[in-house]
Amino acid sequence: MKALFIGGIKSGKSKNAEEYVLKHSKKKPFYLATTEFFDDEMSVKVKKHQTQRGDKFITIEESLQLSKVIKSQDSIILVECVSMWINNMLYHGFSEEDMINQIKELSSRHVDIVFVINDVGCCVVSDNALVRKFVDINGRISQLLASTCQEVYNTVAGINVKIK
Amino acid sequence: MKALFIGGIKSGKSKNAEEYVLKHSKKKPFYLATTEFFDDEMSVKVKKHQTQRGDKFITIEESLQLSKVIKSQDSIILVECVSMWINNMLYHGFSEEDMINQIKELSSRHVDIVFVINDVGCCVVSDNALVRKFVDINGRISQLLASTCQEVYNTVAGINVKIK
Amino acid sequence: MKALFIGGIKSGKSKNAEEYVLKHSKKKPFYLATTEFFDDEMSVKVKKHQTQRGDKFITIEESLQLSKVIKSQDSIILVECVSMWINNMLYHGFSEEDMINQIKELSSRHVDIVFVINDVGCCVVSDNALVRKFVDINGRISQLLASTCQEVYNTVAGINVKIK
Repeated sequence: MKALFIGGIKSGKSKNAEEYVLKHSKKKPFYLATTEFFDDEMSVKVKKHQTQRGDKFITIEESLQLSKVIKSQDSIILVECVSMWINNMLYHGFSEEDMINQIKELSSRHVDIVFVINDVGCCVVSDNALVRKFVDINGRISQLLASTCQEVYNTVAGINVKIK
Repeated sequence: MKALFIGGIKSGKSKNAEEYVLKHSKKKPFYLATTEFFDDEMSVKVKKHQTQRGDKFITIEESLQLSKVIKSQDSIILVECVSMWINNMLYHGFSEEDMINQIKELSSRHVDIVFVINDVGCCVVSDNALVRKFVDINGRISQLLASTCQEVYNTVAGINVKIK
Repeated sequence: MKALFIGGIKSGKSKNAEEYVLKHSKKKPFYLATTEFFDDEMSVKVKKHQTQRGDKFITIEESLQLSKVIKSQDSIILVECVSMWINNMLYHGFSEEDMINQIKELSSRHVDIVFVINDVGCCVVSDNALVRKFVDINGRISQLLASTCQEVYNTVAGINVKIK
């Protein structure tokens, strides 16, 4: 089983994805945190998320090689989040092809994964080339994930709209 | 009864919310205008809105203390819009807690309210700290409102998509 | 028949609109390309799109006077995309009224047209006056198109959500 939660900033996608995973997992699920700590604001945000999660998840931290840490498990793995991972991959010089290959490999494995990704494209095209690149890749990866997941939820104002 | 209309800039959410209120109100409804006149462009915009509304609504103007002006009424109150109110509250130094308390108080009252809020989160994270704060609060207030309203509409290209 | 595909950057709206047109057209459909080549990045992007399309469409290039090139045809015309056309019209000094008149004229013709437009409004209001103007017009044209089309699809992560 693979599912995707997509939504804007503070749309509730992460909270909803966590609830979905806790509801569907028979054993304690895994929380794959992709965030790198670039600054203090991000650290505060992540700490807050960790406190909210409590000990309901087993946390794995990996900001780049998702396919190395996602292995056959008998509980669900929540990837939180794919957009941050794209950001990290870009920052460390990986190509879009590297990212697509990882996602394809993950998609082909017999592992239950719930992906969370930001919807970042409902705005004008940025005048910053790196932002444009990020937005384009994020969109294409969203399409790829949605095409391989059995269930896709678009979260708006905390409400999951099932679109697949 | 409480309802929420959420949508992007010029999605038609306000027009649709007005039509909804006029259709469901037995007496002349109230229009709670939250806009502060920060500049001329905004004044022109508001004047245009007023002309469009004509005398179909009784207009109340309040940019901060919504809970003071929203009292037991036998007709519907349209709050236009919550995002502008969040902006005003931030500008005047109120905290997110102040905002959440007001929203919670409004939600608990036996008054028919239709809220309009902007969807501002489907883009990359801003490099401006105040914008980030606004976007985060706007998202959390959207979730809070959606959880307490009986009906939630996501307006896209003038079309109301009922998501709750 | 008229249909509208609306979605964010790299949401898959163009690809889906192309597939829709190819599926519904009895003869080789027309591809009305509205892009002007302002810079190299755009040229590369357009070349990529052309290669993807191959010879499945008859390409027409017109960046301003859509109503002059869209005439009675016995196959579908794909307008790709309306947002770019709005951008061109603004750049060349045309007014919103000019744009609305063209769209209304197109809508009234007995021609099968599939329109693609960007959803650019789910973000904070820009501090750039021209961007604000573009976003407002794009939103109003979206509403106008959606009101006259028989079918409207909101594309999210490559998935067509039929909203009308």
